[in-house]
Amino acid sequence: MIRVFSLAIGDELLDGRVADNNTKDLGDALAVMGLELVGAMTVPDSRANIIAALHHAVSQADVVVTSGGLGPTSDDITAECIAEAATVGLRFDEPSYERMKAMFDGRGIPMPENNRRQAMLPASSRTLENQMGTAPGFVTPLARAEVWSFPGVPKEYRHLRDDYLLPMLQDRQQHGKPSRLLRRSIRVLGLAESAIGERLALFEKGHSDVRVQYRVAFPEIIIRVVMVADPADTGAIARLDLLAAEAQRTIGAHAYAMGDDPLEVRVLEHLAHRHESLALAESCTGGLISKRLTDVPGASASILGGVVSYADSLKVGMLGVPAACIEEHGAVSEETAKAMAQGVVTRTGATWGLSVTGVAGPDGGSAHKPVGTVWFGIAGPPGVVAVHKKLPDFGRDRVREMAAATGLRVLLEALAGEGVIG
Amino acid sequence: MIRVFSLAIGDELLDGRVADNNTKDLGDALAVMGLELVGAMTVPDSRANIIAALHHAVSQADVVVTSGGLGPTSDDITAECIAEAATVGLRFDEPSYERMKAMFDGRGIPMPENNRRQAMLPASSRTLENQMGTAPGFVTPLARAEVWSFPGVPKEYRHLRDDYLLPMLQDRQQHGKPSRLLRRSIRVLGLAESAIGERLALFEKGHSDVRVQYRVAFPEIIIRVVMVADPADTGAIARLDLLAAEAQRTIGAHAYAMGDDPLEVRVLEHLAHRHESLALAESCTGGLISKRLTDVPGASASILGGVVSYADSLKVGMLGVPAACIEEHGAVSEETAKAMAQGVVTRTGATWGLSVTGVAGPDGGSAHKPVGTVWFGIAGPPGVVAVHKKLPDFGRDRVREMAAATGLRVLLEALAGEGVIG
Repeated sequence: MIRVFSLAIGDELLDGRVADNNTKDLGDALAVMGLELVGAMTVPDSRANIIAALHHAVSQADVVVTSGGLGPTSDDITAECIAEAATVGLRFDEPSYERMKAMFDGRGIPMPENNRRQAMLPASSRTLENQMGTAPGFVTPLARAEVWSFPGVPKEYRHLRDDYLLPMLQDRQQHGKPSRLLRRSIRVLGLAESAIGERLALFEKGHSDVRVQYRVAFPEIIIRVVMVADPADTGAIARLDLLAAEAQRTIGAHAYAMGDDPLEVRVLEHLAHRHESLALAESCTGGLISKRLTDVPGASASILGGVVSYADSLKVGMLGVPAACIEEHGAVSEETAKAMAQGVVTRTGATWGLSVTGVAGPDGGSAHKPVGTVWFGIAGPPGVVAVHKKLPDFGRDRVREMAAATGLRVLLEALAGEGVIG
Repeated sequence: MIRVFSLAIGDELLDGRVADNNTKDLGDALAVMGLELVGAMTVPDSRANIIAALHHAVSQADVVVTSGGLGPTSDDITAECIAEAATVGLRFDEPSYERMKAMFDGRGIPMPENNRRQAMLPASSRTLENQMGTAPGFVTPLARAEVWSFPGVPKEYRHLRDDYLLPMLQDRQQHGKPSRLLRRSIRVLGLAESAIGERLALFEKGHSDVRVQYRVAFPEIIIRVVMVADPADTGAIARLDLLAAEAQRTIGAHAYAMGDDPLEVRVLEHLAHRHESLALAESCTGGLISKRLTDVPGASASILGGVVSYADSLKVGMLGVPAACIEEHGAVSEETAKAMAQGVVTRTGATWGLSVTGVAGPDGGSAHKPVGTVWFGIAGPPGVVAVHKKLPDFGRDRVREMAAATGLRVLLEALAGEGVIG
């Protein structure tokens, strides 16, 4: 097992200005390959701190990945510190310097003399060409480890990580064997992580050839069933698919789908496939469902838009909900949800209408309709239905996020003809 | 200057499952007091790693804050490792045990025997009562430093940090002087961090009694002018206000406001103050502005809702934009933006209408109207106007975020009577 250590360098990571996301992203990328970080450190732009951290890191790991401190200013001292730790000097990397000059020339800007610093690398290092920015990456042997140095800018970090580091790790880890980390994702809505863990406990114990990973993407939990195998081994892949299906069944109805696509993408796929359109009538979610759907490029092929009928007057005036319906049953009711969904279909000509009306809090709840009470209405070719959910009151933002996701989920079932309707 | 080090403990922080937000939050809280983290480490749930990290951390800092590893299961070994590093045994903390039992009793659940582990603390430690969970925090002397141990759960971490650690640091730092870190926030929209830095360079050099901090809250940048002073010293406070105003002037018109309130809160305050209402007509932002406004509790007092007129048919059918207007000028045009804003006011009866129509990308751009072209319309008591912006094409999500923020900013100017209208 190759031991990898992450060393993030920069004052801005320690004074609350910037979060170090490179470490988590690296951990994530390694996990996909079946590797793990053995540790991580963050140090300020200080020579003594960086050198002490380098010595500590190489005592713990085979590969140390540094991020940051490769810029052109005087507080960017990563290369100098690595050279000092390795007791070597600096070398001037002519090709990197020429690449920088060409980048500046291409933009019609004379290159500041400062940038020359970025071509000064540890004498014993080899260069990693950075196609996304001026600072080259480099790899320096230190003690019995290798130090891989990347810029801290996430885009450049990911480029060097994915194009140089991960392939090297993959090669070393496999010793020539063509195995990879294969995975199947299961999306779960409406169950807590601990509850899923309990349901999967026996499954995890019973199948030692797969691992189960959990990831929270509130309000969803994404479960990954992971196996190391040769991607050409159809037997292994069939077994992975079988086990993933077993895990999904074991979790139950809350595990609503396989794969990596979020709810809004699934809804759009259904609609595009059927050449049908959708309009929204949102009350408590205040535009959040429309926002999620239109986040997806190309949404305009199926999403007409809709009405945010936050005030009851808009439910009546813009959606045609009878005022008597709201008076008699309340704005948060089966009848109003149905009338909203039907109204948005009638007024926009969409194939489908989805409505949401609920109590998001913190105010507006009652004993009869507490915060978290939500009604969803769906109008479409098979007719009009309403679905009721009592969501847990985890606060206004979370109730709204849950209501939006649940609305998309309910719609998805209707589109798939899974018996919500009729 | 007190040196603080953050040590995060847990496998889940290194395999990509969970990001360590406690370190950034701690850095942020310290920055507000004028203190900084001198370093941070993350280690897996492994005895050798934790003990090595503790020794490294106490060599760098006066106060080491550990997070995680205080749970009831066998992989929670923080207390044991600290005891071993300090070469002391463990003690059974009876009051913590009794508190746990009472918590379980209160929920009507018998306490699992496992939880007894959480009351086993280093013999030389003192206990920090945790009012948010079962695991107590504790403080253990180690070498010449103090190790403060908190649970990793962010809510419990913040509770122990804010109620025990920060007051201690405050006391020690001040040596009895009543000085605090006072700050003024300036909100900037439409200028990059580096451009603000250039404009403030002379200001920062010229005033050594204040510091300037930068914080990105995309698409806004929040600038803080920070001074250490006695809060009762009215002269110092007047000077801070003066300098903050100077910084705001120096940045220019993009520095649109002082204070911590986001745009949607400012808009809602204006509306509430004037007892006026607002309706939205959103095209490219797809509901995002409505969502932001209705994120704020109590938004229903002023926000009626509106129309997400993503499809042109809804601009015509739901907002009354003349089809000829769209045909002649295009959906992204001054005329359509005005007709949308006027239409949503006419149809909803709102005092004000805000419309947005633009090209969010990735498709739909042209040489004449490239991605990032956005028109905003405002209809209100003074009349109807439209404002044009060419936002940079940083990708669909960012164009939409910028368009939503810019729309709120334009509306705010109109509400404040700052000459957008007329």
